[in-house]
Amino acid sequence: MNIIINPPKFAWPSLLQRPAFDTVSLQKTVREILNEVKENGDHAIIELTQQYDKVLLKDFEFDEVELMNAEADTPSALKKAIIQAAENIEKFHSSQITLPEIIETIPGVQCWRKSVGIEKVGIYIPGGSAPLFSTVLMLGIPAKLAGCKQIVLCSPPNVEGKLHPAIIYAAKLVGVTHIYKIGGVQAIAAMAYGTRTVPKVNKIFGPGNRYVTCAKQLVQEDGIAIDMPAGPSEVCVLADDSAHAYFVAADLLSQAEHGADSQVLLVSTSEVFVNKVNLELEKQLEALSRKDIAAKALQNSKAIIVEDIKDAIDIINEYAPEHLILACNDPMSVGNKIINAGSIFLGNYSPESAGDYASGTNHTLPTNGSAKAYSGISVDSFVKKITFQKLSKQGLLNIANTVELMAEAEGLDAHKNAITIRVNHLKK
Amino acid sequence: MNIIINPPKFAWPSLLQRPAFDTVSLQKTVREILNEVKENGDHAIIELTQQYDKVLLKDFEFDEVELMNAEADTPSALKKAIIQAAENIEKFHSSQITLPEIIETIPGVQCWRKSVGIEKVGIYIPGGSAPLFSTVLMLGIPAKLAGCKQIVLCSPPNVEGKLHPAIIYAAKLVGVTHIYKIGGVQAIAAMAYGTRTVPKVNKIFGPGNRYVTCAKQLVQEDGIAIDMPAGPSEVCVLADDSAHAYFVAADLLSQAEHGADSQVLLVSTSEVFVNKVNLELEKQLEALSRKDIAAKALQNSKAIIVEDIKDAIDIINEYAPEHLILACNDPMSVGNKIINAGSIFLGNYSPESAGDYASGTNHTLPTNGSAKAYSGISVDSFVKKITFQKLSKQGLLNIANTVELMAEAEGLDAHKNAITIRVNHLKK
Repeated sequence: MNIIINPPKFAWPSLLQRPAFDTVSLQKTVREILNEVKENGDHAIIELTQQYDKVLLKDFEFDEVELMNAEADTPSALKKAIIQAAENIEKFHSSQITLPEIIETIPGVQCWRKSVGIEKVGIYIPGGSAPLFSTVLMLGIPAKLAGCKQIVLCSPPNVEGKLHPAIIYAAKLVGVTHIYKIGGVQAIAAMAYGTRTVPKVNKIFGPGNRYVTCAKQLVQEDGIAIDMPAGPSEVCVLADDSAHAYFVAADLLSQAEHGADSQVLLVSTSEVFVNKVNLELEKQLEALSRKDIAAKALQNSKAIIVEDIKDAIDIINEYAPEHLILACNDPMSVGNKIINAGSIFLGNYSPESAGDYASGTNHTLPTNGSAKAYSGISVDSFVKKITFQKLSKQGLLNIANTVELMAEAEGLDAHKNAITIRVNHLKK
Repeated sequence: MNIIINPPKFAWPSLLQRPAFDTVSLQKTVREILNEVKENGDHAIIELTQQYDKVLLKDFEFDEVELMNAEADTPSALKKAIIQAAENIEKFHSSQITLPEIIETIPGVQCWRKSVGIEKVGIYIPGGSAPLFSTVLMLGIPAKLAGCKQIVLCSPPNVEGKLHPAIIYAAKLVGVTHIYKIGGVQAIAAMAYGTRTVPKVNKIFGPGNRYVTCAKQLVQEDGIAIDMPAGPSEVCVLADDSAHAYFVAADLLSQAEHGADSQVLLVSTSEVFVNKVNLELEKQLEALSRKDIAAKALQNSKAIIVEDIKDAIDIINEYAPEHLILACNDPMSVGNKIINAGSIFLGNYSPESAGDYASGTNHTLPTNGSAKAYSGISVDSFVKKITFQKLSKQGLLNIANTVELMAEAEGLDAHKNAITIRVNHLKK
C-alpha cells in the first residue's frame, strides 16, 4: 500500500480519485451486439454464445433434468449455508416492505402511496472466475418480496454449456421464474428487447464487466430501467489503535481479491498501526489462492494517515466508499457522522464478508463514488410507489380556490377549469 | 379524438405507442454546450445566456433587492395559495420520512438502514410559456424534508434578465439555498460540473425540453444522478356511465393544454359516453386561452371503447400512464388492480389538477411508459439509504460457518479468511 501522511485538504480529490471506468469507447461494439439480438433474437444469441462463450448450444433454456441435477450437484453443507443466508436476507429485506398509509392533508383530501412490484425484472449473474450464487440471493429475494411476477435470470454458460449448480440451486430456492444460459451483452439485449424465448423485462439488475455495464447504460436510453451505475468493488477501512491489524489486513485482502482493479483504502489516525497492517498484508497474501490478483490491487491501494477522527470522517465522506468498515473506538458515533457510503460495518467483529454473504444486508451497493446519490439494492429497487388521491366533494371545495389561483398564475386555464366546472356543479 | 372500438389485443401495443421522443439526434449539439461550460465555467454561461435567452447578464446571481422585490411582486392571494399548497405537500411528504429500524436477523447480528439526505441537489425549472412555480414546491419541499444541505435552483431569465417573481417566492419559501438565472443545457452543465459561482451537485431534478432532457442523460454518463427519464406529460381517463362528460372533457383538456405533444387517452366502456365527451371537448375548447395548443394535442389523442372494465384495466396496465383518473363505479377496487401508473385519481371529484398543485401528492411523475419501472418523486428521491450492521462476537460465530462455506464455494479465499481469522482469535 502507498502510505500518505496528513495530505492537505486541497489534495484530497485527486488523492481519492478512482481510475476512470470508461465505457464510452465500447459503445460502438456493444451497440452492434445489442442491435444484432434486437433484430435476430434467439438465433443471434446462439451465434454470439458460440463466438464469446465458445460453446454451441441447441438452445439456452433448461430442461427438468438439468434443474434436478443442479440440486443433486450442490453439496448439502453448501445448500444448508445458502438456506441460512437466504433466511437472514429475507428477514432483513422483509422489514423494507411498506404498507399504504392514508394521509388526510386537509379535510376531505386523502393521499397515499402503494408499493407495487415491477412486473418483469431481469437479473444478470456474471460468469468468469467466481460463480456468484450469493448475488442470486441478493437480487432474487428482494424481487420476490416486492411481488415481481416474472424474475428472469441470465448467466453465461461454461465451455460445456453449463452453469454452476449452486447458481441454479439458489435461483430455484428464491423463486426465479426463468433461467437462461446467456452471458454478456447478448444477455442484456435479450432481457431489454425480448426474444421469442426470453421475456422483455422492465428493469435489469446485476453486476458485470465493462461490456455488460456499457450495455446496461445503452438500453437505459431505450427506456429500460437499470439498478445503478457500476464500477469495480471498493472497501474503505477506518482504523485506530483499538483495531486488530490482522483483522484489518484480512478485510483489505477480501476486497483486493475481487479483481486487479478493486479499490482498497485504509484511513487511520495511527502510523504505527498502518505499518503493522502492511506487515500483516504481506504475510496473509502468501496463503491466498487469488494471490496475484490481490497483490495487483494492493499495488494501487492507499493508506492515508490523518490528524484526527474528524479528518478521517471528512475524507471518507469525500470518497463515498461502497463498503466502510469502522474498526475504531465508538464506531456507532462515527457511523452517524458518515453521510456518503453504501454499507457500514461497525466494530471489530463486523467484517465486510459477513454482509457479502449472510448477515442479511444487501451486497449490491453503489461504487465509484455514486454512494453520494444512490442507495444499495433493497425491496425499494423492485417496486414502484404509485400515489393515490381521493377527494370528497367537500375536499374539492376546500382546495378549489388554491388550485384555481395557482393554475391561473401559471397561465394554465384548462387546469383551473377542471376545478371550476366541478365547483359550479356542486353549487347548482 | 380518434375513436377506436374494441381493438383486438394484438393491436394494443401499436395503438398505445407514444411518438418517439428522440434525444439521440441532439447529442452532438448538447455535448458541445456541456463541454463549453465544463471548460469555461461562468464565462461560458454568460455567453450562452446571451445566445439562447437573448439577454446579456452581468452575472446570474440574485441580490437582496431582487429577492425582496419578488416577494412584493407576488400578489398576496397567490402567496396565500402557494402557502396552502406547500402545507399540504409538506404534510403528505413528511409521512415518507423513515426512521431506522434495527432487525436482528440472527442472535448477535443487527442490521438497519438509515436515510441520509443527498448533500447537494439541483432543481431545474423551465421557462417557456408557463412559470412553473408549482414545480419549485414539488421538488424543493421533499429536498428540504430529506435533509439536503444545498438545494440549487436554475431557471432561465426572460429578455429583461428576470425570473417570474412567484418562482423566486416559492424557492425562498421552501428553503432553496441557491437560485441562479440560468436556463437550458448550460444550467444542467453548471449543476453537473460546478463553476466558480454554481456548486456542483450530486443529483439533478426537474422537467425540461428535449435539449434539457438530453443534457440530463449525458451528464448521467459522467456519474451525476438524475430524477427519471422525461417525456411529454400524459393523462388517461377511465370513464363509465357513472362519470360526468363535462368533468372528463375538462380533465382531458387540462392535459392537452400543456403542449401539442401532450398525450391524452380516454378508455371507456360506453360509446354513448365517449360521444358526449367529444361534444363537450369542442364546447370547452373555445373558451381556453391555450386553445390552439390543446386542439393540436387532441388531434393526436385517442378514445378507446372496450368490452368491459377488465379490458380497460389491462389496456391501462399496458399503457402505464403518468396520470390516471378513474371516473367509474367503485374506483377503489379498480385502482387496486392497476399495476402501472404514476399517480391515480379516484372518483369524480379528484381531478388531475388537484394533484398538480395542492392536494399534497407530487406532480413530478414517470411519463412515456416508464411508470412500469419508476415511481414519481418523493422524499425517497432525495435520500440514500445507508445500510449498517453490527455483529457481536457471538453474532460472528453464529454466521461464521455459513459465510466460510459460501465464500469457499465462490472461490473467494480471502473473504473466508476475514471470518476464520476472527473465529480463531475468539477461540484462543
